[in-house]
Amino acid sequence: MSSISIIGLGTMTRAIAARAVEGGNAVEVIGRDAAKAKDLAAELGGSATAGTFATTPVGDLVFLAVPYASAVPIVAQYGDALAGKVIIDITNTSNPDATGLVTPDDTSGAQEIAKAAPASAHVVKAFNTVFGHILAQGGPLDVLLAGDDMQAKTSVSTLIETLGLRPLDAGGLEVARWLEGAGLVMISLARHGVGNFNFSLGVDLVG
Amino acid sequence: MSSISIIGLGTMTRAIAARAVEGGNAVEVIGRDAAKAKDLAAELGGSATAGTFATTPVGDLVFLAVPYASAVPIVAQYGDALAGKVIIDITNTSNPDATGLVTPDDTSGAQEIAKAAPASAHVVKAFNTVFGHILAQGGPLDVLLAGDDMQAKTSVSTLIETLGLRPLDAGGLEVARWLEGAGLVMISLARHGVGNFNFSLGVDLVG
Repeated sequence: MSSISIIGLGTMTRAIAARAVEGGNAVEVIGRDAAKAKDLAAELGGSATAGTFATTPVGDLVFLAVPYASAVPIVAQYGDALAGKVIIDITNTSNPDATGLVTPDDTSGAQEIAKAAPASAHVVKAFNTVFGHILAQGGPLDVLLAGDDMQAKTSVSTLIETLGLRPLDAGGLEVARWLEGAGLVMISLARHGVGNFNFSLGVDLVG
Repeated sequence: MSSISIIGLGTMTRAIAARAVEGGNAVEVIGRDAAKAKDLAAELGGSATAGTFATTPVGDLVFLAVPYASAVPIVAQYGDALAGKVIIDITNTSNPDATGLVTPDDTSGAQEIAKAAPASAHVVKAFNTVFGHILAQGGPLDVLLAGDDMQAKTSVSTLIETLGLRPLDAGGLEVARWLEGAGLVMISLARHGVGNFNFSLGVDLVG
């Protein structure tokens, strides 16, 4: 069982939180709109609670489930409230055309978030190659992840398994840029007619 | 039925050529070492023939199945011999560490190949997200592709289907960089223990 907090109150939060509650984890949902967070916690039921924005999250694992443009400012605003936490960056850094990434060439959303976070926090990129509406449907999916701290990746992988999903370690945080590129590919595939948006990226084990 | 030529005599060529012969396509294999190309054609049997390096390939679809470092020089050497051809770039542009790409940030291997090719040729990125040894095993796999010319992409997709594979259109050639990044992710996943290298990237259609 993991204790998780999710900052953001959108589609991805609903999907992750619902699976996390079902998987027996302690779940805190957090948004700037406290009333909306409270409503979502009530809707989720089970272990779900509503946290207070910009104060120390309850969970050891803290999802950043907000648009990338908000993610770095939010981490900066939290400051030491994220000390020692595992920060799970699920953001999509694709431009609106799904032809390029909004981050500079020598970095990634996850690495920018790591720069803004306390030194004692560990950032893991994950879940950005899964559509929220597919995650919400239930069923097994692959979750690609990357990060520099093995213990943090193990914690995230354990959580992912309780969500009924398969964690796949793609390497260190320098690979996050290419996972973000894979998110772009996912969006571009969907826009070019693949599966009417009803698919998930992953691997087939063969041989 | 397609008529294809494959430049390069390595693992990917064997795997693609074997499937292409089995799928009823006309297949020409080409290498600098003419004797080796002849041996491979004989081994492949069926429709397979050996072509002559740096002369006009027989196939309408021409695979560049060589290391990326050789690909642009070879296209330049071929020059007008590739006029009007569909060039299928299957190269992997990952650095040896699988942490970054060897191409500059504002381009991709496929785009560099397009710059070196005759204006009447069309470049399609494909097959770089599939391991050669997995392709050689047989069985259905996903082949992600990108290119700017719809007719060229349709020709490549038709060929891919005769190989018993599923073509997935990821968009225009500007997405090639991110397909090349997905190739990097594939290599990095394998090095981090996923499936003991026995897997293939792709999509699961759901919902």
